[in-house]
Amino acid sequence: MAIDALRGTRACVFDAYGTLFDVHGAVRRHRSALGDDPGAVSALWRQKQLEYTWLRTLMGAHADFWTLTCDALDVALERYGFAGDGELRARLLEAYRELDAYPEVTATLETVRARGRATAILSNGAPAMLRDAVAAADIGPLLDHVLSIEEVGLYKPRPEVYALACSRLDLLPEAICFLSANSWDAHGAAHHGLRVVWVNRFDQPVDRLPGEPVATIRSLDELPPLLDDDRGPSRGASGRPPPS
Amino acid sequence: MAIDALRGTRACVFDAYGTLFDVHGAVRRHRSALGDDPGAVSALWRQKQLEYTWLRTLMGAHADFWTLTCDALDVALERYGFAGDGELRARLLEAYRELDAYPEVTATLETVRARGRATAILSNGAPAMLRDAVAAADIGPLLDHVLSIEEVGLYKPRPEVYALACSRLDLLPEAICFLSANSWDAHGAAHHGLRVVWVNRFDQPVDRLPGEPVATIRSLDELPPLLDDDRGPSRGASGRPPPS
Repeated sequence: MAIDALRGTRACVFDAYGTLFDVHGAVRRHRSALGDDPGAVSALWRQKQLEYTWLRTLMGAHADFWTLTCDALDVALERYGFAGDGELRARLLEAYRELDAYPEVTATLETVRARGRATAILSNGAPAMLRDAVAAADIGPLLDHVLSIEEVGLYKPRPEVYALACSRLDLLPEAICFLSANSWDAHGAAHHGLRVVWVNRFDQPVDRLPGEPVATIRSLDELPPLLDDDRGPSRGASGRPPPS
Repeated sequence: MAIDALRGTRACVFDAYGTLFDVHGAVRRHRSALGDDPGAVSALWRQKQLEYTWLRTLMGAHADFWTLTCDALDVALERYGFAGDGELRARLLEAYRELDAYPEVTATLETVRARGRATAILSNGAPAMLRDAVAAADIGPLLDHVLSIEEVGLYKPRPEVYALACSRLDLLPEAICFLSANSWDAHGAAHHGLRVVWVNRFDQPVDRLPGEPVATIRSLDELPPLLDDDRGPSRGASGRPPPS
């Protein structure tokens, strides 16, 4: 059932890694080369990748997401005893450029558009990474904008990142429905005023952080029923209804 | 053997949680109430506590370290099925106020002073937490300064935190020997120009972050041999040697 908090939103903006694309797909493709616990390698790769985004932004020492993805993989490979395997490293990084999209992504984007919303990605990913991922998933024609934090040189959840989506889409924060599977990203966007749906894919407990999502779903196919049909001509570009 | 990079340092500044105090001591004291894997509860408590410091600083939504310690514990208890146990929660939090100091801490502080250095804590901890921890470990008389990030309202590794130590000790960054068992804190301080010794207590791989520690040790009792004896009257307050 459509929920009031998303009524009047004009765009659905999606986080990419973890939300549209399965970040554990790279390790999964090469799991036979990664010993007893490939899942632990993938988890540490992801954890370090995120930590490096936060820490470098706090330190004032930005580097792009591809650099951090490589750095994080190096730590994870070292931790689990694969430090010297340059070929494995290269194959994992190659796979990271073409991660699997979650199975419901294409249909979700189509339905969101049919509900009268613009579609966008707002991601930590470097522009070239996002181009590769979008092309591999064949969803380019379904996206109106693909936005990278490289435009501001700061990582999520800095407010400048969410402000970038507002300015590039020319929408007020409350006219954007933002979707992320990353709890901290969901809170960051909600704290900035966006209407957030948290995609809790792995049944995680709610993080104790500022910013309140308006809804929680388990996968993106639960999104379209939450959206009213907004194809009418009666709204201004700001997402505000016209004066009555 | 004394190392050149620490020659001329006038103070040893210590991180508190993880470096002087064993953050896993609270769960250890109550491990029998925490099911099959108390270590996992403690690890998640610590992980969330740190993440909340980084994320709240990035979001511009500061809250003090005691609030975040409680928030992080709530997530960890929920994740492992102890959400409703208010008494357990209270006992764990009480134990966190009086964490065990690592066994070599007192002797290290004494020796550092005997080497002519001032001693200080620079911690994320709220002032009242630090007072309790220092009192429980009985190390107050061995510390010249106990500095909390609450003075700047931003968490490590923001540069303002390391600058606070410099200004309060009236020393240039290169006149401070900074010790942390938290790799990211070690990198943050080194990136700010402090001379950093990373206390790699758990044999972790080196993080791929800016800032280079000048030495790595496994526990604090390896620190004193790295320091030259600096009790002579020949140095100015800045830590620079006098003009020859």
